[in-house]
Amino acid sequence: MILPHVIETLSGIVGPEHLRLDPADFEAYATDGTKLRFMPDAVIFPGNSREVSAILILADQEGFPVIPRGAGTGMSGGALPVSGGLVMSMERFNRIVSIDEDNLIAKVEPGVITARLQAEVEKCGLFYPPDPASSDISTIGGNVAECAGGLRAVKYGVTRDYILGLTAVLPTGEILKTGVETMKGVVGYDLTRLLIGSEGTLAVVTEITVRLVPRPETQRTMIAFFREVTGAVETVSRIIRSRILPSTLELMDSRSIACVRDEIALGVPAGTEALLLIEVDGGREEVERDALRVRQVCEASGVSGFLTADDRQGAETLWEARRNLSPSLYKLRPHKVSEDIVVPRSRMAELVMFLDAVSRRYGLPIPAFGHAGDGNLHVNIMLDKNDPLECSKAEEIVKALFEKVIAMGGTLSGEHGIGITKAAYLGMEISPAGIALMQRIKKAFDPHGILNPGKMMT
Amino acid sequence: MILPHVIETLSGIVGPEHLRLDPADFEAYATDGTKLRFMPDAVIFPGNSREVSAILILADQEGFPVIPRGAGTGMSGGALPVSGGLVMSMERFNRIVSIDEDNLIAKVEPGVITARLQAEVEKCGLFYPPDPASSDISTIGGNVAECAGGLRAVKYGVTRDYILGLTAVLPTGEILKTGVETMKGVVGYDLTRLLIGSEGTLAVVTEITVRLVPRPETQRTMIAFFREVTGAVETVSRIIRSRILPSTLELMDSRSIACVRDEIALGVPAGTEALLLIEVDGGREEVERDALRVRQVCEASGVSGFLTADDRQGAETLWEARRNLSPSLYKLRPHKVSEDIVVPRSRMAELVMFLDAVSRRYGLPIPAFGHAGDGNLHVNIMLDKNDPLECSKAEEIVKALFEKVIAMGGTLSGEHGIGITKAAYLGMEISPAGIALMQRIKKAFDPHGILNPGKMMT
Repeated sequence: MILPHVIETLSGIVGPEHLRLDPADFEAYATDGTKLRFMPDAVIFPGNSREVSAILILADQEGFPVIPRGAGTGMSGGALPVSGGLVMSMERFNRIVSIDEDNLIAKVEPGVITARLQAEVEKCGLFYPPDPASSDISTIGGNVAECAGGLRAVKYGVTRDYILGLTAVLPTGEILKTGVETMKGVVGYDLTRLLIGSEGTLAVVTEITVRLVPRPETQRTMIAFFREVTGAVETVSRIIRSRILPSTLELMDSRSIACVRDEIALGVPAGTEALLLIEVDGGREEVERDALRVRQVCEASGVSGFLTADDRQGAETLWEARRNLSPSLYKLRPHKVSEDIVVPRSRMAELVMFLDAVSRRYGLPIPAFGHAGDGNLHVNIMLDKNDPLECSKAEEIVKALFEKVIAMGGTLSGEHGIGITKAAYLGMEISPAGIALMQRIKKAFDPHGILNPGKMMT
Repeated sequence: MILPHVIETLSGIVGPEHLRLDPADFEAYATDGTKLRFMPDAVIFPGNSREVSAILILADQEGFPVIPRGAGTGMSGGALPVSGGLVMSMERFNRIVSIDEDNLIAKVEPGVITARLQAEVEKCGLFYPPDPASSDISTIGGNVAECAGGLRAVKYGVTRDYILGLTAVLPTGEILKTGVETMKGVVGYDLTRLLIGSEGTLAVVTEITVRLVPRPETQRTMIAFFREVTGAVETVSRIIRSRILPSTLELMDSRSIACVRDEIALGVPAGTEALLLIEVDGGREEVERDALRVRQVCEASGVSGFLTADDRQGAETLWEARRNLSPSLYKLRPHKVSEDIVVPRSRMAELVMFLDAVSRRYGLPIPAFGHAGDGNLHVNIMLDKNDPLECSKAEEIVKALFEKVIAMGGTLSGEHGIGITKAAYLGMEISPAGIALMQRIKKAFDPHGILNPGKMMT
C-alpha cells in the first residue's frame, strides 16, 4: 500500500503523466518471462537519475518496495512486485548516449533494447558481442541486472565481460559512478561487477559504459548430426581442443529435435539423437580454415550428417531449427519449467543421460538444448500445470536435477539468475556463511530493504 | 604488539617452524615493490585454509592486524604491515592442484608463481593469458589481490577475466567458496570479482579456479619508429580500427628510448620521438596476415623505421628494449615515483605532451611508456629522494598528473592498485558516497578491521 500523500509526492517528482495508478493501466507490468503474476500498487516512469534518486529517498523514508524493471523478459522473476509496491520502469532511459569509435566504447541508458545497441554499433563497424536469445526484446539494463549470457558466450563471454562502468542510484538516493570509461581500472572495490547480476537488489542503474570490439568480417554456420549424444558432447570438447573457438556451439537433444523436425527444411538423418549448431566468425581466411577444421573434427567423430550454409539464406535455414525450438516444445505439454544449469563441458552427456532416466521414471518429457560450448544447458520439464500430480513431479525433478548438477561441480544458473523461482534452492549452492555475507552486503547498500525485496535471498 | 599468549596459540596452529618471531628472520617481509619499509611483529606461514581460518579467528578476537602477502612485488604497498601486526605469507600454498584439459580450467593455490602456472599449462597446449611484467616473481594470489594486468591485456584482458571462482577465508574465520568451476554462473552476488582487486582487505584467498584458453600457434614481434608521439598514438587507434587486435601494443616515449638506446642492438633512426612494440599472435595464416596489415598501417602512418623479427632470436632482440627499460631509467636519477594511470586510448598523445610541459616546468625527467593498447601508461617521475626539493616537486607533479587524468576521463590506476601510495588520492576519483559504501562493504566482511588495515581507504 502506498499512501495518498506519497502518491502525490511521486507525481510531483516525475509529473502525473509518468505515474500510473489504475491497475487497468499497468496490467503488463505485473508479469515477466516466468508468466507469474503479482500486481504492483503503482508504476512509475522516471526520466533521469535525479528523479530515480528522489523516488528512492522517498521509498526509504516511507518504507515501500521499489522494483526496477527493464522489458520484463527475465526468466527468474527478478522484475516481479512480489510484495506489491512501486514498479519503476526504466523505459524512458532509452538513449544511446555516445559511440566512441576511437576508444571502442559506448555509453547507453539501461532501457535501450540490446538488439538496437548491437545494430547501431554495427553501423560503425563495431560489435557488442553479448547475445541473449531475448536480445530483440530485452534491455541492456535487464542484461546487466541478470548478467545475461547467450549464444556467443563460448567465444566472447557474457555481459559482465563488456561492462566498464555504471551510473547507479543507491536505495538511499546517492548517485554513484562505478568503474571506468577506459579499457582498464582497479581503483577501489569492484562495485561494477558487484552490481552486475545483482538482480536489481542493490542499486538502480541509470547509465552503462560498454566495451566494444571490431565487428568480425564474416561468419559461417554448420550443423552436425550425431547418432548418440555422447558423440556430440565429445565433439564439443574436440573442437575446442583443436584450437577453434566457435562463436556459437549449441546442442539439441533428440527430444528437442523431434519438436522442430517437421517445421524446418532440414533433412535430419534417421536415428539422429543429437545435433550441434556451430558458427565460426572472424576474418575470411580464418573462417574458411576454422569451418574446414570443424568439419574434419566432426567427421573424425563419426557424424551421421553434416550441413554447411553457403550463404546468409542457408545460414538462416540452419538457425531456424534453434530459433523455433522454444515455442515448439509446447507440442509436448501446455507448460514448462525451464532451468538453465551449467555442468563441466566434458560431463554434459552424463547429464543428458540422467535426464533421460528421470524423464522415464516420472513420465514427463524433458527436452534439453543450449549452450554446449559453455556446458550451459536449458532443461525443460514439460507438464500441464493444471494437473497437481504433474506439478509435484516437476518439483521433484527440479530438486533431483539441482542435486545432480551440484554433485557434478556445476551451478544452478548460467544466465537466468535466482530471482524468486530458484530462491528456495540457493542454499544448495551457497553456504550459510556465503548467504549471511550476501545479506550483510545487501544491508550495506539498502539498509531498509526497499529495493526489489524477496529476490535471490528468501 | 602481539601478546605472548597469542604467540603461543599461533605457534600451536601452524607449528613453531612456521612462525618467525625474530626480526632478523623476517627482514624480507618488511618491504615490497615500493621499497618502503614497515616491520611486522611476526610472520606466519599457514599450510591450509583451516590454519588461515584459526589465525583470523584469533586475530579477530585479540584485535591484531593480519597482512596477507604473496611474493611482495606489489607496486602500491598492499603487502606492507603499516601498523605492525602479523604478516601472513602464503608461500606454502604453492601447488598447482589440477589442470583440466577437457574443460580448460586449472585450480591453483595463491602462492604459485604466475610464470610457473603459465609454463605448466603451456605443456598441455593451453594458455593462461594475464602477463604482468612481474610474472617471473609475482604470485597468482598477488595478481588476484591487485587484479594485475600486463602486456597482453589489450587482446586478452586482465586477471579478473580469467578467474572463475575462489576459496576464501573471511576475517571472521568462515571458509567460503565463491563463483563456479564452470564456464558460466550467475548464482548470488559476484563475490569472486568483489574479492579480485580488493588488495587483501576483504578475505584471504586460499585457492583459485582459473579459466584457460588454447595456446596460440605462433606470434610475431615488430617495432615501429615515429618522429612524433602523436603519430605513434594515432597508429595505435588505426591498428585497432583495422580489425587487428595485437597481443601486445606497447609505447615508449623519447625519454624512455634514450635510456635504452645504447644498450640494445636496435638501429633507432635519428629523430625518433616514440616507438611501438607490437606483437600479433594466433594461427600461422592469421599471424602472417595481421603482421602484414600492421606493417601497412604503420607505413601509411609515416613511420621513420619498421623492424620485424624473423625468428625467436630476433623477437628477443626487439623485446630487450622493453625489458631493459625499467632498470635503465635510473640513469636519469637515483629514484623514481611510478604511476600507472589510464586515459582514453585516443588521448594518450595529449597526456605525453602534458608530461613534456610538466617535466620542463619542474626540471625533472618524466619518461613514459606502457600499454598503449589499453591507454595505460607508466609515468615515471625520476628524482633524488635525498633532495627535499625534488621530493616536493614530485608530489606536485603527481597531483597535477592525477588532476589531468581525471579531467581526461581516465583513472588513477590501471593495474597497480591504490594500497598506501595512492590512498590519499582516492577521493579524486571516487565520490564520498562511493567511499562510504566501500567502507560499509569492508565492514560487512571485516567487522573489526583486522585484515590489511590502512590500505586503499585511509
